[in-house]
This record gives sequence, C-alpha cells and structure tokens, in this order.
Amino acid sequence: MSNRYELRFSGAGGQGLILAGIIMAEAAAIYDGKQALQSQSYGPEARGGASKSEVIISDEPIDYPKATAVDALLALTQEACDKYSGDLKENGILLLDSDLVKKLPKGKYRVVKFPIINTAKNEVGRTIVANIVALGAMVALTGIVSKESAEKAVLARVPEAFTDLNRKAFLAGYEKAVAAKKG
Amino acid sequence: MSNRYELRFSGAGGQGLILAGIIMAEAAAIYDGKQALQSQSYGPEARGGASKSEVIISDEPIDYPKATAVDALLALTQEACDKYSGDLKENGILLLDSDLVKKLPKGKYRVVKFPIINTAKNEVGRTIVANIVALGAMVALTGIVSKESAEKAVLARVPEAFTDLNRKAFLAGYEKAVAAKKG
Repeated sequence: MSNRYELRFSGAGGQGLILAGIIMAEAAAIYDGKQALQSQSYGPEARGGASKSEVIISDEPIDYPKATAVDALLALTQEACDKYSGDLKENGILLLDSDLVKKLPKGKYRVVKFPIINTAKNEVGRTIVANIVALGAMVALTGIVSKESAEKAVLARVPEAFTDLNRKAFLAGYEKAVAAKKG
Repeated sequence: MSNRYELRFSGAGGQGLILAGIIMAEAAAIYDGKQALQSQSYGPEARGGASKSEVIISDEPIDYPKATAVDALLALTQEACDKYSGDLKENGILLLDSDLVKKLPKGKYRVVKFPIINTAKNEVGRTIVANIVALGAMVALTGIVSKESAEKAVLARVPEAFTDLNRKAFLAGYEKAVAAKKG
C-alpha cells in the first residue's frame, strides 16, 4: 500500500501559497526524514486570479510528481475552491476560509472551515501571514508532519525580524483548526 | 517535435535557488505566455550540502513534470556539479561558478563560467543576490525567456526596498554571461 500523501494549497496569487508549500515539504523532509516534492505549475488553467502550490510527501521515492488524488486541499477563495477541488479524494480534507468560500464543491469531503484571512488580520495582526495561519491549520488537520517539525520549518524560512509574528500565525492556525474540527 | 526545455539551478542550501526557479517559471508563464512547471524534491539525494530547483518550460501542457534531460544546468558549487550534472543533455549548457567549480563533469557540454558569487559580492555589493546574478546569466545563455520578461519577473518577486540591488544583479549576470560565452 502506498503511503503517498498529496496536499494542495490554493487561493489567489500573492497569498504566499508557494511558501506554505515549501515549508510543508521542508518540514516533512528536513525535520521528519520523509521524502517530499513541492511544485507549482503555471499555464492557461492558472490564469485569472486562482493560484496553487502542491506538496507530495512519502516514505519512498516519489516517481510521479504531479498531484492526482489530493488528500488535503486548502482553498482561500471561492474561485480556487471551484477550480482545484475536482481531484480531491473522497473523504479528503477540505480546509476553507469560512468568510470567502460559501459554495461547497459536490462530493463527500471532511470540510473544516474558519475565517483564515480574518484570523491573520485581526488576531495575529497582519493579513500577510494568512498563509502561515493556513499552514498551521493544514498541519493540525493532516498530521502528515509533526507540529514541532512544521514550526521549525516555518522559523527557518521567514525573516528573523518576523519570527514572533509567524510563530503566532502558525499556532493560531493550528489551534483554530483543532477547534473547528471538533465543533 | 517537443519544445520542452528543462533548467536546473543547483548549489548549496540557502543560496536562493528555489526563488531563482520560481522567477524563471513566472517569466516564462506570466510574461511570455508559455507553460511552466517549477519544482523541488527533497530526499536522501538532497541531504548534505547540495540543493537544486528545476523549471520545465513548454508551449504545450507539461505531462511529465520531472526533469529527465536537462538543457541548461547552473552549478554554484563543486558538490552540486558532481551530483546534478548526470542527466545534462549532450551539448547542453553548463553554467559554473569559476571560483568554486574546478572539476568538470565528463561529457560534451557548452561550458560557460565566471565568478558568479564574487560578482554578487564585489560588483553588485551583496552575496545574497548571487541567485539573481545566476538567473540573469541563465536567461542570457538559454534565451528561453526574454530579458524583459525575466527582469519584470525578478522585480515582481523581490521586496520593493531591494529593487535596485536585484535589477543590478540581474543585469550583471546577464552581461557577464554574454561576455563569458564570447570569450
């Protein structure tokens, strides 16, 4: 049985989704000793406002590096949710921004939602760390990397002056997701 | 005939090779209207000091997203050159840091070299922009994206406070590569 796990971070361009993907991959590979592949494709399907990055995590070498059956999808905008939820697995995790994604895709998913952008803006203090809030939530929901590894990977990738801000964003996302899952 | 073009940026971790790859992909896709896929894999082969990122550019959808026959390889360190030059195409472009890569891999390549890190440090003024110097050189040598598109893509990705530094780095790399190719 394959232990391949596929994650997709989607939203709008400029939301830092590539960085979220890189941090997830580095948490898995550098700190958790797994193999990981992180990618973004740019083509006609990526035109318009929607944007995504993908991470594949496995205990074995990753032969086919494109996501084909997504285990966990983040959607920060309605457009991204509409565009990129087509290959989410049955019973896969669908993490949504509850303020911005109102229309759910058809299919049987485990939907978790909370106001991700709003949490970054009003609880953490900066909209720009919404990607790190979302990353914290994805770590909590998927369990595919440890919380400690992910936090280390975040801190290794962000400018030192913003360590506290990003740690706060990561933990806020992690905790909100745990609460939203229970609720 | 396929018009698929594969680039690999290699060196040491922390040299900004992922960012160089992202900028190359965005130059191709956002500004030149091509399709592009940018990726990094993390696994046992990436342990140790060597690090790489890859970009595939095509006029058509990119079915297989892993580099298999590299058209152009950047190597900023000897270790990266040793590790990642194995699937460089015959007559492919091999861009080297002439201070740091002394031993050439076996095979028939078009080798271009100049002191990339030293150019960043002493001519542009900051070692940290060595990735952008290298990117400028790769743009000049491959011609796979236009100079104008690449410059726009650089400026869209770097912090506004460092616009001038990065433009200078890009142009220095571009010009040094043109001169090194002739020389």
